Amino acid sequence: MASDASTADIPLSEALSAAIALLKQRFGERLVTHDGIRRQHAHTLTWIDGQPPDAVAFAETTEEVAEIVGVAARYRVPIIAFGAGTSLEGHVNAPRGGICLDLSCMDNLLRLNAEDLDCTVQAGMPRGRLNTYLRDTGLFFPVDPGTEEATIGGMASTRASGTTTVRYGTMRDNVLALKAVLADGRIIETAGRARKSAAGYDLTHLLVGSEGTLGIITEVTLRLHGVPECVVAAVASFPTLASACDTTLAAIAMGLGLARIELLDPLTIGAVNKHAGLALAPLPTLFLEFHGTPEAAKEQVATFEELARSEGATRFTSATDEAERKRLWKARHEALWAVREAWPGLAMLITDVCVPVSRLAECVAETEVDITANGLTAPIVGHVGDGNFHALALHSPGDTEQLAQIRGFAERLAARAIAMEGTCTGEHGIGQGKRELLRLERGEAVNVMASIKNALDPLGILNPDKIFN
Amino acid sequence: MASDASTADIPLSEALSAAIALLKQRFGERLVTHDGIRRQHAHTLTWIDGQPPDAVAFAETTEEVAEIVGVAARYRVPIIAFGAGTSLEGHVNAPRGGICLDLSCMDNLLRLNAEDLDCTVQAGMPRGRLNTYLRDTGLFFPVDPGTEEATIGGMASTRASGTTTVRYGTMRDNVLALKAVLADGRIIETAGRARKSAAGYDLTHLLVGSEGTLGIITEVTLRLHGVPECVVAAVASFPTLASACDTTLAAIAMGLGLARIELLDPLTIGAVNKHAGLALAPLPTLFLEFHGTPEAAKEQVATFEELARSEGATRFTSATDEAERKRLWKARHEALWAVREAWPGLAMLITDVCVPVSRLAECVAETEVDITANGLTAPIVGHVGDGNFHALALHSPGDTEQLAQIRGFAERLAARAIAMEGTCTGEHGIGQGKRELLRLERGEAVNVMASIKNALDPLGILNPDKIFN
Repeated sequence: MASDASTADIPLSEALSAAIALLKQRFGERLVTHDGIRRQHAHTLTWIDGQPPDAVAFAETTEEVAEIVGVAARYRVPIIAFGAGTSLEGHVNAPRGGICLDLSCMDNLLRLNAEDLDCTVQAGMPRGRLNTYLRDTGLFFPVDPGTEEATIGGMASTRASGTTTVRYGTMRDNVLALKAVLADGRIIETAGRARKSAAGYDLTHLLVGSEGTLGIITEVTLRLHGVPECVVAAVASFPTLASACDTTLAAIAMGLGLARIELLDPLTIGAVNKHAGLALAPLPTLFLEFHGTPEAAKEQVATFEELARSEGATRFTSATDEAERKRLWKARHEALWAVREAWPGLAMLITDVCVPVSRLAECVAETEVDITANGLTAPIVGHVGDGNFHALALHSPGDTEQLAQIRGFAERLAARAIAMEGTCTGEHGIGQGKRELLRLERGEAVNVMASIKNALDPLGILNPDKIFN
Repeated sequence: MASDASTADIPLSEALSAAIALLKQRFGERLVTHDGIRRQHAHTLTWIDGQPPDAVAFAETTEEVAEIVGVAARYRVPIIAFGAGTSLEGHVNAPRGGICLDLSCMDNLLRLNAEDLDCTVQAGMPRGRLNTYLRDTGLFFPVDPGTEEATIGGMASTRASGTTTVRYGTMRDNVLALKAVLADGRIIETAGRARKSAAGYDLTHLLVGSEGTLGIITEVTLRLHGVPECVVAAVASFPTLASACDTTLAAIAMGLGLARIELLDPLTIGAVNKHAGLALAPLPTLFLEFHGTPEAAKEQVATFEELARSEGATRFTSATDEAERKRLWKARHEALWAVREAWPGLAMLITDVCVPVSRLAECVAETEVDITANGLTAPIVGHVGDGNFHALALHSPGDTEQLAQIRGFAERLAARAIAMEGTCTGEHGIGQGKRELLRLERGEAVNVMASIKNALDPLGILNPDKIFN
């Protein structure tokens, strides 16, 4: 474990042992140093090597989090918040060792205010379970990063989004208030439950997306939305990527109430056809969902079909019945697994960028050229209504040359998005993986971020080496 | 002028003279020390006394702003950004003197990206003029704080909102990116034009609502929205305040696409009847607007009327024709002037709070009791879809006892809203007027805000004595 010479007065290993001993005494079986558990709490999902913490503490209350952070501060030991570990850029790694603070036991729905369309949950609540709890209320929490297990706290920390953003927004738009523990153990509440406020700095949105580097989020107050009266799903195949993107642009310009609009490229369509026994045309394909009253949803679907046909769509299918909707969306839902299965034994570097929607077709097209020119295999899946897309760059595990090659591809992709006034990450975050790219994207503003980090965490104990180098 | 002993190495008056002389040399006629101009740049709109700056600098570019801030930093002289001066809590006052940085000459539309539904404007662009520029594009900028003159930069700085927030959000939701000059003259850009990003701390939303205390906003990239195909206006009178609020709650729970929903209390209705020669029933009255396709808007109006009738609404009128819509909304649009005219010679303390919508009826009712019990006159106007309302507390100018009494009323109102999990200000901001109330509302979090302020403006030159005491 590396020691942090700039902040540690005594060798970190000694401080660390003392901190762990103290926490063990206090938390007993909820402080774990077992190797298997430690490794489960390191990064496990992409090309970034796992760097396990020295211990894992399972907190049950905000006050316990404050206590654990207080010990970490006293001994200047790194502390890394952990939800479900589904982040993709090494956010939960412990490059300087230290204590992983696992929030998965803090998974209660604390309060539901149905009339105000809000609820407060503990940070460890999985988003899928929240929607199960809400099932009988006529309300739902829309942000869908693609996994039921992602915790609300983790999603807030990484400013997560996903397939429904085009209609319901990201975590930025759906977090009303936070309770958080700061680096010195202080507990703050960033806002009340009013739908809007002009009272002082927006600490809520400063913490959303701060990846555990400014404070540890322990409670989240969320906006909820009414379950739409009617949901219509649709699938449209296009002759070219540009025609799919142009249809998307036109639909957004018209203010059509699209709830989801997802693009799968022909490579991905091929994989899902094989995986799910489908027979979709191997063309750029949009998967859509419309929410509204039956009349409004029907009107939207008809308008969209007209737009799609005028852009040359070769096939347009829609469905209102739930089973039929699920069948239509099966290809999209299973895309990630289908890609894994289509190239067995290969690992994936999953990266994402986001550009202004008017630049999307161009950005994807240039990326396809890059993929072909470099002999890579990288299916593309996009939340096209937001200008956000993912490339799943396949590589042989252990082949360092190939890994270097696809890392180069991911860097070029990010630089391309930045040059188009976009961002190096629409929803995955910076973590360890995109620190240089953040610098490329935001320049001087990164120094401002670092000043804030330094002001709120002068010892640098909160999730060190994330966001900043 | 007070001197700031904590930061000034030399007496401020000498430093100030040197700074002004330097700026005069550089900016000539664009650096004004004339008394009338200085007084126009102090707070003029409410009970807070005007505190003029020592000089007013008219900047024309971001680089000039950086240059002026650089001079202010060098001489440790306060610098106060100024847009249109329409804020209500003393934001533009110069309690420590210094230089007012007037941005009204920076009023250009820099770029319109119609396909991406965004545009970039200089901070001094008045919001009314922006919509005039957009008139032929089919797009509009929806945030409407009630005056055409408010500048986009000022609205961003105060996190403004207004009548359309229930549908389109506040400045928080409609600012995509900012260019800003920091306290040391550095220029940063907080984000690109992508609709979402997970790249680092959300500096955009830290600056939105920071009231010129963290940086001076010089350019704003805004989300735009498609002009709705159809707009329907409606007016509904209710027997009680509670029934008006309950109808609002039910409509929101149903996800009805309300674009505006405004409450006027009977006192205000009386004033507008007199002012505009109307004959509205002296009852709690909702003014509504629905945006959508003709079918969707009609459906929404019908559903809303049904809800309103079931809550006992005694009158419901709607209109689609533009002239007729304007007639229906006349009472709402002229409410402020009607109140001024109804009590000639009196001044107003205009305050606002915001509570969860489920608490709105209770908060307004308790406030009415407070008004009656204390023999005050204070019409109430609310953006009820957001739980936000204004009290216009009338007082005789110069009657310090009466002013103290209505200040006490405003403080009780804020405390009431905070106790209901709301906020001491939904849209007016903190400025000088609500600093103690911010402390009451957010407690320890205010110290965190102060740490950030100190990290980004260690000399305390940016709009001193605002937000913090």
